[in-house]
Amino acid sequence: MHRTLGICYYPEHWPQDQWTEDAAHMVAAGLSWVRIGEFAWARMEAVPGTLTWDWLDRAIDVLGTAGLKVVLGTPTATPPRWMLDKYPDMLAVDAQARARKFGSRRHYDFSHPGYRNECRRIARLMGERYGANPYVAAWQIDNEYDCHDTTLSYSDAARRGFQDWLAHRYQSPAALNRAWGNVFWSMDYDSFAQIDLPNLTVTEPNPAHVLAFRRYSSDQVVAFNKVQADELRRHTSAPLIHNYMGRITTFDHWKVGDDLDIASWDSYPIGFLSDRLEGTAKEKATFLRQGHPDMQAFHHDLYRAVGKGRLWVMEQQPGPVNWAPYNPAPLPGMARLWAWEAFAHGAETVCYFRWRQAPFAQEQNHAGLLRPDSRPAPALAECRQVADEIAKLPDVGTATAQAALVFDYASAWAWDTQPQGADFDAFRLAFAAYRALRRAGLNIDILPPDCADLSGYKLVLAPGLMKISDPLRAALARFDGIALIGPRSDTKTDELSIPTPLGPDLPDTDLSVVLTESIPPDAKIKLQGGGIFRHWFEHLEGTAPVHLSTKSGQPAIMGGDHLRYLAGWPDDATFDAIIGGLCDALDLPSFQLAEGLRIRDTATHRFVFNYAPRAQAWGGTIVPAAGVHWEAL
Amino acid sequence: MHRTLGICYYPEHWPQDQWTEDAAHMVAAGLSWVRIGEFAWARMEAVPGTLTWDWLDRAIDVLGTAGLKVVLGTPTATPPRWMLDKYPDMLAVDAQARARKFGSRRHYDFSHPGYRNECRRIARLMGERYGANPYVAAWQIDNEYDCHDTTLSYSDAARRGFQDWLAHRYQSPAALNRAWGNVFWSMDYDSFAQIDLPNLTVTEPNPAHVLAFRRYSSDQVVAFNKVQADELRRHTSAPLIHNYMGRITTFDHWKVGDDLDIASWDSYPIGFLSDRLEGTAKEKATFLRQGHPDMQAFHHDLYRAVGKGRLWVMEQQPGPVNWAPYNPAPLPGMARLWAWEAFAHGAETVCYFRWRQAPFAQEQNHAGLLRPDSRPAPALAECRQVADEIAKLPDVGTATAQAALVFDYASAWAWDTQPQGADFDAFRLAFAAYRALRRAGLNIDILPPDCADLSGYKLVLAPGLMKISDPLRAALARFDGIALIGPRSDTKTDELSIPTPLGPDLPDTDLSVVLTESIPPDAKIKLQGGGIFRHWFEHLEGTAPVHLSTKSGQPAIMGGDHLRYLAGWPDDATFDAIIGGLCDALDLPSFQLAEGLRIRDTATHRFVFNYAPRAQAWGGTIVPAAGVHWEAL
Amino acid sequence: MHRTLGICYYPEHWPQDQWTEDAAHMVAAGLSWVRIGEFAWARMEAVPGTLTWDWLDRAIDVLGTAGLKVVLGTPTATPPRWMLDKYPDMLAVDAQARARKFGSRRHYDFSHPGYRNECRRIARLMGERYGANPYVAAWQIDNEYDCHDTTLSYSDAARRGFQDWLAHRYQSPAALNRAWGNVFWSMDYDSFAQIDLPNLTVTEPNPAHVLAFRRYSSDQVVAFNKVQADELRRHTSAPLIHNYMGRITTFDHWKVGDDLDIASWDSYPIGFLSDRLEGTAKEKATFLRQGHPDMQAFHHDLYRAVGKGRLWVMEQQPGPVNWAPYNPAPLPGMARLWAWEAFAHGAETVCYFRWRQAPFAQEQNHAGLLRPDSRPAPALAECRQVADEIAKLPDVGTATAQAALVFDYASAWAWDTQPQGADFDAFRLAFAAYRALRRAGLNIDILPPDCADLSGYKLVLAPGLMKISDPLRAALARFDGIALIGPRSDTKTDELSIPTPLGPDLPDTDLSVVLTESIPPDAKIKLQGGGIFRHWFEHLEGTAPVHLSTKSGQPAIMGGDHLRYLAGWPDDATFDAIIGGLCDALDLPSFQLAEGLRIRDTATHRFVFNYAPRAQAWGGTIVPAAGVHWEAL
Repeated sequence: MHRTLGICYYPEHWPQDQWTEDAAHMVAAGLSWVRIGEFAWARMEAVPGTLTWDWLDRAIDVLGTAGLKVVLGTPTATPPRWMLDKYPDMLAVDAQARARKFGSRRHYDFSHPGYRNECRRIARLMGERYGANPYVAAWQIDNEYDCHDTTLSYSDAARRGFQDWLAHRYQSPAALNRAWGNVFWSMDYDSFAQIDLPNLTVTEPNPAHVLAFRRYSSDQVVAFNKVQADELRRHTSAPLIHNYMGRITTFDHWKVGDDLDIASWDSYPIGFLSDRLEGTAKEKATFLRQGHPDMQAFHHDLYRAVGKGRLWVMEQQPGPVNWAPYNPAPLPGMARLWAWEAFAHGAETVCYFRWRQAPFAQEQNHAGLLRPDSRPAPALAECRQVADEIAKLPDVGTATAQAALVFDYASAWAWDTQPQGADFDAFRLAFAAYRALRRAGLNIDILPPDCADLSGYKLVLAPGLMKISDPLRAALARFDGIALIGPRSDTKTDELSIPTPLGPDLPDTDLSVVLTESIPPDAKIKLQGGGIFRHWFEHLEGTAPVHLSTKSGQPAIMGGDHLRYLAGWPDDATFDAIIGGLCDALDLPSFQLAEGLRIRDTATHRFVFNYAPRAQAWGGTIVPAAGVHWEAL
Repeated sequence: MHRTLGICYYPEHWPQDQWTEDAAHMVAAGLSWVRIGEFAWARMEAVPGTLTWDWLDRAIDVLGTAGLKVVLGTPTATPPRWMLDKYPDMLAVDAQARARKFGSRRHYDFSHPGYRNECRRIARLMGERYGANPYVAAWQIDNEYDCHDTTLSYSDAARRGFQDWLAHRYQSPAALNRAWGNVFWSMDYDSFAQIDLPNLTVTEPNPAHVLAFRRYSSDQVVAFNKVQADELRRHTSAPLIHNYMGRITTFDHWKVGDDLDIASWDSYPIGFLSDRLEGTAKEKATFLRQGHPDMQAFHHDLYRAVGKGRLWVMEQQPGPVNWAPYNPAPLPGMARLWAWEAFAHGAETVCYFRWRQAPFAQEQNHAGLLRPDSRPAPALAECRQVADEIAKLPDVGTATAQAALVFDYASAWAWDTQPQGADFDAFRLAFAAYRALRRAGLNIDILPPDCADLSGYKLVLAPGLMKISDPLRAALARFDGIALIGPRSDTKTDELSIPTPLGPDLPDTDLSVVLTESIPPDAKIKLQGGGIFRHWFEHLEGTAPVHLSTKSGQPAIMGGDHLRYLAGWPDDATFDAIIGGLCDALDLPSFQLAEGLRIRDTATHRFVFNYAPRAQAWGGTIVPAAGVHWEAL
Repeated sequence: MHRTLGICYYPEHWPQDQWTEDAAHMVAAGLSWVRIGEFAWARMEAVPGTLTWDWLDRAIDVLGTAGLKVVLGTPTATPPRWMLDKYPDMLAVDAQARARKFGSRRHYDFSHPGYRNECRRIARLMGERYGANPYVAAWQIDNEYDCHDTTLSYSDAARRGFQDWLAHRYQSPAALNRAWGNVFWSMDYDSFAQIDLPNLTVTEPNPAHVLAFRRYSSDQVVAFNKVQADELRRHTSAPLIHNYMGRITTFDHWKVGDDLDIASWDSYPIGFLSDRLEGTAKEKATFLRQGHPDMQAFHHDLYRAVGKGRLWVMEQQPGPVNWAPYNPAPLPGMARLWAWEAFAHGAETVCYFRWRQAPFAQEQNHAGLLRPDSRPAPALAECRQVADEIAKLPDVGTATAQAALVFDYASAWAWDTQPQGADFDAFRLAFAAYRALRRAGLNIDILPPDCADLSGYKLVLAPGLMKISDPLRAALARFDGIALIGPRSDTKTDELSIPTPLGPDLPDTDLSVVLTESIPPDAKIKLQGGGIFRHWFEHLEGTAPVHLSTKSGQPAIMGGDHLRYLAGWPDDATFDAIIGGLCDALDLPSFQLAEGLRIRDTATHRFVFNYAPRAQAWGGTIVPAAGVHWEAL
């Protein structure tokens, strides 16, 4: 696989006479790709209906003739101010019923039909003009869906759309009432028009109501994206991409991915550590300038699957950012490490964000490869180093994984809706399982919930799946490795109610969850042999063998040779012991990697990444802090 | 007294062909009572004006013929969706001015006259049909007033009602201005129509304004309840009941209780420990699966008084619930312990909530006596055990109390309005006093603020009373035990201002509170002899004798032989020493009970409850964790 | 300088027959001034247009004939209820778009033209009637601007006013778009009428947009004040005063001060410690009953400068207040200490708030010099003591300062808008610098950002200045002491963007901030020699000499002999070492004062204040807890 570097660039921010020099400088820095255009609607169409392409024509030409391939973005994340005059009701509305106003970005409601048509129009116009442009080698649609919590809107447009969606799904109010159990508190509806959005209710709304709204909302993101994808495909054969974010679970990325060619994501390791990851104060301090050692890998593995094998990093943090609660500089070396880690996980291209630090507006304190005064920022040299290393390192082949983790967005909605324990979170649980696999040094694939084929894997984890899909259940029935299902898996119906007989329904495995407990952060369930469960514990019954018990004698892991159920949420050390034991049982070589040391094997090489702020030994090699080491396998 | 067990059941949730088997199973479980109907308005009247009674006729008949007595609930906590079409303005409005929407329960405004009439109508219709039904042996009106913070509403209906209420109370704006001291910040009103609800003001509104609104709001709950009570009494002679909640102080339960025959409450010990009690992390961990050892007793004693001697537990937690931040399972034995503790405190009937765990809607993760698949949940056997024990234990007679605690809802509103220290709370203070009495092993009665007779008690505590009522003052003047008044008692007028001369006005006792201090959680006022005050300290002046001083020489307890004033908020150990000293002075035998061990004496027996998660000795008896022991006196 | 004491009094709260006795009692207590009237609009004009002056005539006469000088307040902080009928849209609107209702005080929008005219009218009427009254010796305009967060309003009036203000400032939308960098996210505007207030945007609005709104909002306070000042000056030659608050940075006090004669402030040391200062739990506990030892001095020095040399304390805390989270009583002696500290810092008059504790309304738990029952509260004797001491102590002359600190309100708005680190705050940084100077025992002047003359100072600190003004830059160029600029100083343009070349632009000093980091509270940047930076660190480049480095070799202090840049935020011990080193280099005598011990030198005396809760030695003198000591220099 050919690996390349790229950059995000905003020609509209700079005088045209600077573009040529910038382009030459980019090429000199080892960059091959340049992404442009995604926030420039006001420059393309300052006056409604009057398109101004000349500057963009010239920008693409300057960049392309310098040897760069262009990723052209549709600017639909930033509708111009005049759009609001046309559609005053296009703004999203938050759960507190406040319209989310113009003045930043993403100020649109995914449900609004008028705005969706405008997006179709601008995509068509851009496709017509640039679809066949030889320098435009890829397209990005919109930018960071759901960023700033924009998937869910409680607007009139959303309410009308939701009512239609419900009518389509349930056909009759009576069927909906039955499916949701509206008899419970006399919540029955006589018509779909009576059904409001599930915000601001006196106490919690029916969880089935909320889950339906979450499904509806995800579907709007999928539909919004598809409108543009369909339009662009009429005019271009270049690959279509969206740039996802980290730890966003509000829409089904698998479904958006189905309509695109490549999945990319925006990787801000230090910002994400600070603003969206659990962890002890000590962990946060240790990785303050590196990011969490598993966060990037998780998303590389997730989006590689969402991209059906094709992965990019569309935005790579190069220095301090502006948007996290605290914004320290990365350790020297991290801008290189992050890029190599992405490549080791299958990324084709890593684009740094951004070329020159903008001196104005919201992100003026966000570092680029250049400072605002056009002098090199620290990451520029690391970028050049990676480019040189790519040139030297032979193709390392495609990785294969021994372990797999099933990840399902609808389950995240289900547990958001019905956490039952205040700190229960589907991503957190999946990430805990992922981290344990990765501390064991395994290559991991992340699989969609309707995955129908597990062959090739030895170890499969499926934590927190609301309901096991039929294809997955069939694949599990055929699976000859060990699948560790749970906790909290397959215990609900598709409508987020409790099935009878009680779940999980594991092929040829007699066990049920008969009672569920959540416990506070400081509480623990002690296990035989010294481990502990935290947060969550399910009481299991059935005739299946018990592999591990709690100190009080209740099943902790139960099941057959191939399918087992994990009854609680192990802490990290316990998860390590469980995964280690399973690897031993499977004759799968595994590690207990030191803090911050992580490995990834491609077909030909083993890559070693040291996220720790100190040098660490790997075999006979000393890997420096923020260092990358590779060795042939 | 005959003690019985009961169950909450929702025939409308299950196929009719299951009712007969359920009823037989209930009887086999030792249950005598079954509560039904309280959320079923949409099944009684799916179409406005068209009543559908046949299913309810049949349900009552099936349950009654099986030998169960029915508590029939009015369904007014869950108006059907069509009610909103009729009265779009019937929704309550929160303090942020947002209507609290349909989609859960309690979506009504206590002030709304149209909805109040609808409730009168459904109560009349139910009374007409079932008032004389031989199986309907009691009625429940509405469900859990104020649950989900529904007493206070900032709606137009509330504003109009409040203005009328003010006009009735004050007769003229000038009188109101004088009573409230509106001169203070030019807050005078020219007409009642100018007076808005006291939310969203620039800074805190006049405390007299807020207190008036709190009184008005409480009065609406009383009036709402009375409308249904009056209607039902026309058709039935069965007792009328409401099921109160734990630590709800937003309406005057004494006044609601005046219009009913029995006070019942919904006892969720583990949920309440988690979501509405102060306590150290250690206490919370120790009692995680048992609940606070004094919380249930407090409410039994409180509601026994509110019920003028007649007490039920209408809903008893049987296993994990769904609504607390964390929801662990009770220790084995707690479902039995809670029932016996209720009986020891005078409960006639304890109903578990609920029969079968609902597989759908908001409470699907709330345990019942049966699992969703109809198999026995753990509490079922404990229920049967209690039934057997009731049958074996002779009538234990009625308890009498040596100690009393005065509890006043209006004072809770006063201190909510004017806490002066951020952690000052009337319930918290009263509960601190109650806990000290109970750790001393005393039987306690809780008395209303207008209690006119203290004879029979040796020790009376009156903490946090905004103003001592005239009847209570007269009773205190005659009291021959020791009454410990304060802290923060009788220092305000009825309009929440400061009286001149300064309070308290204790008969024949010369002392005044001349200065008040609140201090942060970590600060303390040290007392002679080693005790400490926390949170609150009042500087006393006067000629009354000083019984206890602070280290700096200020009075800590002051007063005569019978009436004394406590100047601060003692911590638990200090409260124990104070109560122990008073008991000694009164020749009242007292204990220093071990952590989690509690006693209650009836006329013939002493009951010992072990809330601790480990066995503890009581005399020569080892009481197991979650165990109950009784012995003849 | 003649020092006097005063009192805040509300004749409208008390029967007229009490006024004479109160006045005599005030004189006996040693008071010379009495402030009245500032909340009495409803008594002056109960009916619109009908003025009732007789009671106020009489009050002034009674007080004046008793020998008191009157400060007469305009009552514009408390418009009567009828004003709302006239201007329903005069209420301010909070950032959540909720109108802030009548029922307390300050219920007006600074932008509302109708209400501003009403204020002009009442000021005119009062000026006409009392401008020449011999007893009215000073005027107060309004009361505590911004108290209860009232500077910023998101109302329609504010939006219209802001659009006009923008049109005036930028002249064309195109110029505004350029100045703000609206190209960034297609945020360009076509007309000023499109520009909304910067609240409720999807994510953060353009910082230039917010800064403009902050400037506009500050300008409205200035204009609101000036309307009344201009009106009063037509009728009186008595000095005009406003009473500012502590740690309020939402409007430019320098500009308000330009239109007035004296700056006064309301000093609530214990309340401020509790509700608006950072600090460790230990510090908060140590100073619980005294207030922060530098908070009062900072504001005395600040407002002395805002008042162009004329300073009053208009409200001095005398005992527990009602409005902080916790409200303990001051240590005995503090009411005296605070007054003497104010005098040592140049205050002409210190007025205690208030005469008699009000028994009603919002502040009934706020202590006065008298209790509600008219008996002396503890502070009365301290007040009398101060009056006696003033009489005995010869004029102590005017202080001069060796050190200066530049303080800029616009910078506070800038860093509020763009904190970059969650705990970065301009006041906090300036106060950290001030505290270090004061622990070194220096007299300090606080200077406005456009200060053009630094002669006379040896040491100047300028932390957190968004942009150094031209006059200050010129003064720095001439400065022959040492000026320590930074951190975060002169790194932005006037539109809150990043300049090219990068700042700071220090005369004859080659250094630039090339990269900025914020770090979490527990993180540190270690310095050579053992110091640390917290919160903030800037990477410096340039050829200027390095005076101090980080452990990793980056510049920590850099610059020439006179102008140096401080690259980070030193912790207290590090700041002490830095200031100590600079004093040594300047041959400026300095101290390392013990905890809570503070000094202030006037021309003739050194004053020593012991804020600690224990006695401490000063030379051979033992200064008791809460004690004041003075010695001739």
